[in-house]
Amino acid sequence: MDFHKYPKEYDVIVIGAGHAGCEASLAPARMGLETLTLTVNLDHVAFMPCNPSLGGPGKSHIVREIDALGGEMARNMDKTMIQIRMLNTSKGPAVHGLRGQSDKAAYHRRMKQVLEQQDKLDLKQEIAEEIVVENGQVRGVITKTGIFFAGKKVILTTGTFLKGRIIIGEAEFNAGPNQQYPANKLSGSLKKLGINLRRFKTGTPPRVSKRSLDFSKMEPQPGETGLSFSFDSEPLSEEQVMCYLTYTTEETHSIIRDNKMRTPLFSGVIEGVGPRYCPSIEDKVVRFPDKNRHQLFIEPEGLNTDEYYISGLSTSLPHDVQIEMARTIPGLENVEIMRPGYAIEYDCVDPEELKLDLELKKIKGLYTAGQINGSSGYEEAAGQGLIAGINAALSLQDREAVILKRSQAYIGVLIDDLVTKGTPEPYRVMTSRAEYRLLLRQDNADQRLTPLGKEIGLVSEERYQKYKNKLTAIKNIISYLRDPENKVNPTAEVREKLTDLSSGNLSKPVSLEKLLRRPEISYADLKFFTDGLPEATADVIEQIEIQVKYKGYIDRQQAQVDQFRKMEEKKIPVEIDYDKLENLRLEAREKLAKIRPLSIGQASRISGVSPADISALMIYLEQYRRNQGGNTSGN
Amino acid sequence: MDFHKYPKEYDVIVIGAGHAGCEASLAPARMGLETLTLTVNLDHVAFMPCNPSLGGPGKSHIVREIDALGGEMARNMDKTMIQIRMLNTSKGPAVHGLRGQSDKAAYHRRMKQVLEQQDKLDLKQEIAEEIVVENGQVRGVITKTGIFFAGKKVILTTGTFLKGRIIIGEAEFNAGPNQQYPANKLSGSLKKLGINLRRFKTGTPPRVSKRSLDFSKMEPQPGETGLSFSFDSEPLSEEQVMCYLTYTTEETHSIIRDNKMRTPLFSGVIEGVGPRYCPSIEDKVVRFPDKNRHQLFIEPEGLNTDEYYISGLSTSLPHDVQIEMARTIPGLENVEIMRPGYAIEYDCVDPEELKLDLELKKIKGLYTAGQINGSSGYEEAAGQGLIAGINAALSLQDREAVILKRSQAYIGVLIDDLVTKGTPEPYRVMTSRAEYRLLLRQDNADQRLTPLGKEIGLVSEERYQKYKNKLTAIKNIISYLRDPENKVNPTAEVREKLTDLSSGNLSKPVSLEKLLRRPEISYADLKFFTDGLPEATADVIEQIEIQVKYKGYIDRQQAQVDQFRKMEEKKIPVEIDYDKLENLRLEAREKLAKIRPLSIGQASRISGVSPADISALMIYLEQYRRNQGGNTSGN
Ligand SMILES: Cc1cc2nc3c(=O)[nH]c(=O)nc-3n(C[C@H](O)[C@H](O)[C@H](O)COP(=O)(O)OP(=O)(O)OC[C@H]3O[C@@H](n4cnc5c(N)ncnc54)[C@H](O)[C@@H]3O)c2cc1C
Ligand SMILES: Cc1cc2nc3c(=O)[nH]c(=O)nc-3n(C[C@H](O)[C@H](O)[C@H](O)COP(=O)(O)OP(=O)(O)OC[C@H]3O[C@@H](n4cnc5c(N)ncnc54)[C@H](O)[C@@H]3O)c2cc1C
Repeated sequence: MDFHKYPKEYDVIVIGAGHAGCEASLAPARMGLETLTLTVNLDHVAFMPCNPSLGGPGKSHIVREIDALGGEMARNMDKTMIQIRMLNTSKGPAVHGLRGQSDKAAYHRRMKQVLEQQDKLDLKQEIAEEIVVENGQVRGVITKTGIFFAGKKVILTTGTFLKGRIIIGEAEFNAGPNQQYPANKLSGSLKKLGINLRRFKTGTPPRVSKRSLDFSKMEPQPGETGLSFSFDSEPLSEEQVMCYLTYTTEETHSIIRDNKMRTPLFSGVIEGVGPRYCPSIEDKVVRFPDKNRHQLFIEPEGLNTDEYYISGLSTSLPHDVQIEMARTIPGLENVEIMRPGYAIEYDCVDPEELKLDLELKKIKGLYTAGQINGSSGYEEAAGQGLIAGINAALSLQDREAVILKRSQAYIGVLIDDLVTKGTPEPYRVMTSRAEYRLLLRQDNADQRLTPLGKEIGLVSEERYQKYKNKLTAIKNIISYLRDPENKVNPTAEVREKLTDLSSGNLSKPVSLEKLLRRPEISYADLKFFTDGLPEATADVIEQIEIQVKYKGYIDRQQAQVDQFRKMEEKKIPVEIDYDKLENLRLEAREKLAKIRPLSIGQASRISGVSPADISALMIYLEQYRRNQGGNTSGN
Repeated sequence: MDFHKYPKEYDVIVIGAGHAGCEASLAPARMGLETLTLTVNLDHVAFMPCNPSLGGPGKSHIVREIDALGGEMARNMDKTMIQIRMLNTSKGPAVHGLRGQSDKAAYHRRMKQVLEQQDKLDLKQEIAEEIVVENGQVRGVITKTGIFFAGKKVILTTGTFLKGRIIIGEAEFNAGPNQQYPANKLSGSLKKLGINLRRFKTGTPPRVSKRSLDFSKMEPQPGETGLSFSFDSEPLSEEQVMCYLTYTTEETHSIIRDNKMRTPLFSGVIEGVGPRYCPSIEDKVVRFPDKNRHQLFIEPEGLNTDEYYISGLSTSLPHDVQIEMARTIPGLENVEIMRPGYAIEYDCVDPEELKLDLELKKIKGLYTAGQINGSSGYEEAAGQGLIAGINAALSLQDREAVILKRSQAYIGVLIDDLVTKGTPEPYRVMTSRAEYRLLLRQDNADQRLTPLGKEIGLVSEERYQKYKNKLTAIKNIISYLRDPENKVNPTAEVREKLTDLSSGNLSKPVSLEKLLRRPEISYADLKFFTDGLPEATADVIEQIEIQVKYKGYIDRQQAQVDQFRKMEEKKIPVEIDYDKLENLRLEAREKLAKIRPLSIGQASRISGVSPADISALMIYLEQYRRNQGGNTSGN
């Protein structure tokens, strides 16, 4: 088919309007660049093909980082949320995680309208089939209807659509998630460009009819008040929906065991690699034979629908087996499945093809973000989408790329992990992946990233001022707490109050800060010990308590970060010819040549590169620098 | 693939949850039967693939008939409507037509939830691939995921999904409407059952971005207050959206003429037959070369979206041509198309395969309704869906089928036309198709059909009482108007008032009824002429005015209907062997054998059957009856 050039030329073209695509589109448009977003179906912008929820530890951190940088995900969630809770509150603040239920249809609707109304952004239903590249530089995209859209930068965020293949037991067919129209040609175009592709898979549980559930046999999981995702939203004030907890049974497991060979996952037909950390129920049953039950959360898909989601029952077993097994679960004895669970296999890009700014090494101006990079999860996708969008825009503005450090953001950890280590399976963020967990809390994402968001141009002056005011309030109050003037004396009254608070006694005067360091004493308690305790908002108090109580840990982690930074600042010139580094083992040389790390820090995280290799590399760099007259960047 | 039997057996299985499928599903469930609805995608229940609106002359009549019979369409519309107007008010009441704009996403959402919450109805996302038939009797359906759902009756309402093929200029691909997943196997199953299939096509215009429109160059088309579709709803009270009117230009036409060979419609590649009465813009330009412009209505797709619909610009021209031509339209100079227009080709059933109750002649228990029967339009689909659903249920309850007469309802005209005459192209209802237009008004659909809806079991006692009260009010007031006691005397005051009303003078006393017959005098005006004029609601007044003013015409049409009924009551025994009727022309014999009309009336409407054939047939029937001892039904 011939193609016809679209009358307008774009700065940035984003392929996909999923969670990655929406952020990747909004960022450049808001930064003033002409942006085009193409999507398979406009009725599924920001569609949630799996759980109708965002967050959880690690994931909620990313949502808040997106928010601090000026992205949309947190705000969209707050506007369409129907329940919110804080998970892990029995543990330290580093692993606290917000989890919100969204009204899935409303989430889509609002995000679509935000895109529609965004200045400089054109949103179109069009399937991209070919990436046009000239001399290693991207030029634009050709669509199924024969239009050539010229663009200076192209960002691919195709999720699970590339050669999507749905598997429900013996039934297999070519389709995007939830039976959407698949994108069958684009990965061919990527292959032709020499990009290394892989085949991953993921899965989702059945959706069931509310009328067929017996909630009286389940444990209610209510929401909590006072919470929101965005630093800029009011807490959710509407009445919240109820979720429920139930469990699989021995009977469920035995049905799964009896039928597992009927899913191609076990019979060996599926080639795609699945996510270890979001396993299917058949995986869980087979991998943990001793566990006699698995948790299942029953969650509504929205306010205007009676569809419920069975979190934890992801499966690619045949439909008839899904029905049989679901009916062995307490509360689901008469369940009517409205949509069976399924697995989906798809083409994605080997993230080792990427630079840390998410541009492909082989093609200038072509970026990828989201599930196409081998990640899994809405939040992970959105985080990458935002960074790809920002970097495409910054590059057009001749500004330096944003590469978030591992000590700065979970998004930094995520991208560094993907790009530096690659991933053998769909990658999911977890708090355990971050070395500096205590610094990368969800509660301080604003302090970590708002200034950067401002600098990039995505955080408004008004919002920035609000943030600065919060910082000032925190600072002033901490000064107040440290002020020797405000020391607490061990009077009889004070000692009595401390006993009341089950807190150890005082023998000599102590600062309010020291008192607050005690786990059992809250900021509010301090009122008793001082006359002028400043009033403060809940978010300011939260910061003061965390910063005071965890000061020791935080300082220690900060020292590690400074150490780490030195390694990251030891830059490696891109032009290095690793073949010449004969002191490195062959595997290390190959890996380094493939990844082309930007720093010694990044090099040291590449699997297959040993500490000995790093020493050799550092010696070589020292010589190299001397030979170049010491004018290389870094150090 | 093996199949597995679903644990539950259904009375009625409906394939499809479009406009036909929703009514076909709700009716049997509400009549107490176990019903199952299967649909390709639950996110598109009651989806409007074309205009985001219902109604217009003929179509609004059907919507109100559906309402009077206890269907859902009118209520769903009223709950999700964002503008409403009455068209054709300059003409007589027979051709008045409501036209409402819906919030398309809300229309889907609400209808989906009505189905979800309907007792005895299970709604499932599943693609049907095979109809199971045993000894000419339907037994159920097998789906893509290998489930066999057993059902006593099956209703097919597959719309444009069977082997759906989208055409946008040179781009063609297998898909359902709006790039939904197509249903590729089901028509093969129908073919195997010996059902005669055809290939039709239809088309839709591009959707465009609000931000790119210049409304100042268009004519505003505001809504009107006081209107609703359902007899049971309050009039729309919210603020209404604005629609706009603009026109194609000579430039638009010349672009179309220059490029028309780039759509397979003109180059002869499309085999499907398109709707003559909803032509594409290229059709209009070619068929009416003298018209220098065509009307285009610009309509919002909903409240929470910035997509607009260009009514009148349906097209299968290439995407680049769509862009070029759209930009020659006043107000659309900078338009951004969000979804290009397209044509879609699909398999449908030859409606001559059907009986008037919408059951297939060849397969007991298998019904078809909606676009699959060769019709076009949401309202036409819903009307058929309702009748098929009712008849499947009535048959299971051993009750007689509902066959609406041509003198009783537009739905009757529609089904009789399809089944008796067949249709060479997608069939659309029009007021001109009804012989007894003045009786089949939209305003009296309740009087025509509520008692039947009650008898069937779809109209609640409460609603029926409300309807009876309305009838009583009308009757009482008409008695009052006729009462000689209330005669108006030609006093000076009366004569003066008449002059004021630009009405002719009185010479002798006259009844209020007679006075109201004058076109220039309204019910409200009568207040002046009588002391005790009863108060009445707007709908009652509307009926009184129409019944009084048009009495002459109505009575005349009623006489014709009585005449007509005699023909319809001359029943034809099904067992007749037309081959033996040698006095009939061969063509007539073949046609009669194929259609198997139920009455002389129906026989006389079959194309290819002449009045002479009918005479011969009547003579034969007379003999036949005498031979049978006169015990045949009818007459
Ligand atoms: C069945 C299923 C189960 C999942 N289960 C989990 C889970 O258990 N846990 C978890 O964390 N995550 C899960 N996910 C992953 C999660 O849904 C994704 O990670 C997330 O949606 C990815 O966002 P994305 O923006 O990368 O891609 P998507 O949200 O898939 O969006 C892709 C976008 O690209 C568009 N597109 C694709 N190809 C083209 C093209 N050629 N032209 C134009 N547009 C195109 C699509 O229309 C869509 O808008 C699951 C996903 C699926 C489908
Ligand atoms: C592009 C386009 C343009 C149109 N233009 C006009 C117009 O200009 N004027 C006009 O009056 N009308 C127009 N129409 C027609 C109007 O949309 C249809 O007449 C109306 O939607 C038909 O309703 P339906 O219920 O028969 O089918 P649909 O609304 O199409 O619904 C079909 C249903 O069947 C389901 N289905 C199909 N196959 C299967 C299967 N194998 N298994 C399970 N479920 C299945 C689908 O999921 C869907 O729910 C147009 C339609 C299209 C698609």
